[in-house]
Amino acid sequence: MKKALEGLKVVDLTTALNGPFCTMILADYGAEVLKIEPIEGEQCRFWGPLDEKSGESGFYNYVNRNKKGATLNLKTKKGLELFYELVKDADILVENFRGGITKKLKIDYETIKKINPAIIYASGSGFGQYGPITHRPCYDIVAQAMGGMINLTGFKETNPVKVGPSVADHVAGIYLALGVMLALYNRKVTGVGQQVDVAMFDTIFSILENALVNYTMGGEITQRNGNVDPSISPFDVYECKDGFVALGVGNDKLFRTFSATIGHPELMEDPRFATNDLRCNNYIPDLQNLIRGWCKDYTKGEIESIMDEAGIPCGPVLNVKEAIEHPHIQEREMMVHCEHPTAGDQYFQGCVIKLSETPGEVSAPSPLLGQHNREIFGLTEEEMKKLKEEGVL
Amino acid sequence: MKKALEGLKVVDLTTALNGPFCTMILADYGAEVLKIEPIEGEQCRFWGPLDEKSGESGFYNYVNRNKKGATLNLKTKKGLELFYELVKDADILVENFRGGITKKLKIDYETIKKINPAIIYASGSGFGQYGPITHRPCYDIVAQAMGGMINLTGFKETNPVKVGPSVADHVAGIYLALGVMLALYNRKVTGVGQQVDVAMFDTIFSILENALVNYTMGGEITQRNGNVDPSISPFDVYECKDGFVALGVGNDKLFRTFSATIGHPELMEDPRFATNDLRCNNYIPDLQNLIRGWCKDYTKGEIESIMDEAGIPCGPVLNVKEAIEHPHIQEREMMVHCEHPTAGDQYFQGCVIKLSETPGEVSAPSPLLGQHNREIFGLTEEEMKKLKEEGVL
Repeated sequence: MKKALEGLKVVDLTTALNGPFCTMILADYGAEVLKIEPIEGEQCRFWGPLDEKSGESGFYNYVNRNKKGATLNLKTKKGLELFYELVKDADILVENFRGGITKKLKIDYETIKKINPAIIYASGSGFGQYGPITHRPCYDIVAQAMGGMINLTGFKETNPVKVGPSVADHVAGIYLALGVMLALYNRKVTGVGQQVDVAMFDTIFSILENALVNYTMGGEITQRNGNVDPSISPFDVYECKDGFVALGVGNDKLFRTFSATIGHPELMEDPRFATNDLRCNNYIPDLQNLIRGWCKDYTKGEIESIMDEAGIPCGPVLNVKEAIEHPHIQEREMMVHCEHPTAGDQYFQGCVIKLSETPGEVSAPSPLLGQHNREIFGLTEEEMKKLKEEGVL
Repeated sequence: MKKALEGLKVVDLTTALNGPFCTMILADYGAEVLKIEPIEGEQCRFWGPLDEKSGESGFYNYVNRNKKGATLNLKTKKGLELFYELVKDADILVENFRGGITKKLKIDYETIKKINPAIIYASGSGFGQYGPITHRPCYDIVAQAMGGMINLTGFKETNPVKVGPSVADHVAGIYLALGVMLALYNRKVTGVGQQVDVAMFDTIFSILENALVNYTMGGEITQRNGNVDPSISPFDVYECKDGFVALGVGNDKLFRTFSATIGHPELMEDPRFATNDLRCNNYIPDLQNLIRGWCKDYTKGEIESIMDEAGIPCGPVLNVKEAIEHPHIQEREMMVHCEHPTAGDQYFQGCVIKLSETPGEVSAPSPLLGQHNREIFGLTEEEMKKLKEEGVL
């Protein structure tokens, strides 16, 4: 089957997470992604878990599958020349240096545009390409903090807590891929290339949800509230016999069913709980305690079955092993395998976007350091040797 | 300035969050989005915060800006006829019913494809269009739970906690918009339409990061660990005089600078802290306590300035008001204004993806219920009146 992005050439200068996650998606759907790393390898080649035998990073491997890889020292004259040659016929360039660095390296959009006017130049970063703190370095935790996410996550009684996985990096990477596609579609219509700029700070800020409008409409500064939703009730995580379950009862009709299901049909007639708005205001303590009490007598599997039968949105809190082994994840090919030349069998997440005619696919492992130098730069063995000695490759 | 998606017609059947967030992005970048709601209005019209005067939902308003709106009863024969007519020349249809419902309504992809073979038919849902639990209803909290996110978020000592904002819904919406663009680009090349299927369960699963490979490579089931990163140290959130700051000291070079900055240059010579690996193993309790002690004497603003000067990734934990008012958010137009006909001034998040040539824009408020019935269906006043009486509009 053909893939959606077949025939597109992507030059990929990204490291660590947001940029590589973007180009991973482009590669999954068929673009030829040429990952250009510094000679020593990019930073996340050294991040755990590391394969005991080969020393390869599982972290690097999951986010760089389907890509080809080369090394290049952009701080040498020859390295820069090779780079300019490479981008001449590229469709897309993706980079995620912090603001200002591409200019220092002479690979900023203004420079590259002169070489290839139609290129889509996509930049992922902590703080974006303009704005008062564009220059700052950023890790996921900093973007989660400043974007307002950490303050909204955790229980009232404890300190604020970050989202476990690197949500700022991953979501910025998805936005960046979407930005590339918006620009690419526009180029298909108008012929014009452009720059795409996505910041992790903006990314987190954009998904604060009703906290934003709670403030702009009513001046309310939403505070973290554990698992309780401010606008839907009941909507919470409950402890049961062998773990936790999440329940979301989104409207009056569902609440009527839910009340009957847990053996309390009278709840719907209770003036405190008759509408969603009332339930939001009066959920704590009585309604919460009543549901907590009910859940204590069942396992998470039992509650899941009961609620499934009743049509109530419900699911167990799964750990990573349970999620990986879930038959739904398996059937939707959300776990894939590929064979790495030195690290052997690799298993990681599959392609989220299911396309009926041009599905994504994991068909190649991540590249070894400099594995495709020859192919990507079109060099002879002799030229390669010389460039290595000169510290260019 | 022209927009990237100008000229594209999107028929939007979505409700609540993941679907509307997808079509919001398409509308922000210039697509004509025609939102079709049930006669009583879609569910999130009733979700707070509600405008005191008009009763309009701030929640609905932020996620439905830039769209046109109509009502339609798809369960009537005439309603279905009007719908089939509407999709004839649409480029994209987006829906987020749970699996199986579109077939019942006779608006599934197989049916619509016969009317419009080139259409991009995009489906967002909790569990996707196939798989053993495709039929189940789902809210954000359920996808966060089953996808493995809740189990990885929170402190060791407390119960697991969901991400405050609805991360499954928002991120599934972004993936869905990306899926639409992949399919649209492919159609521009090949002329072929297709179905796009994105599940919130898969979405959360896809961003579990190194937890996945920790398990597949080493059999380790990663547990929640508060704000501490297992593979970078120091990487944590610290309490200071007036709140909290996030700090990420990603490598030895940064740690040398950091140690000097907090007045403890000897740390780098301490055999417990000489490398990142050692620091990860020995961070708790001594190094953590030392940094905690240092932070207590400063405000978050002071720490931010000190670390900015030193080049250490650092940021304050901002609440929603502080994030909204941040000069960087302001300068990057991440807060926008529009005037709503009944709710008045509306302020919410702007467009994340900054495109240099075809920028996104918030140019119109969300539609009133049925506001564009006439325009969207091309009806006379008399026809409208009749259809309203018949319960079609």
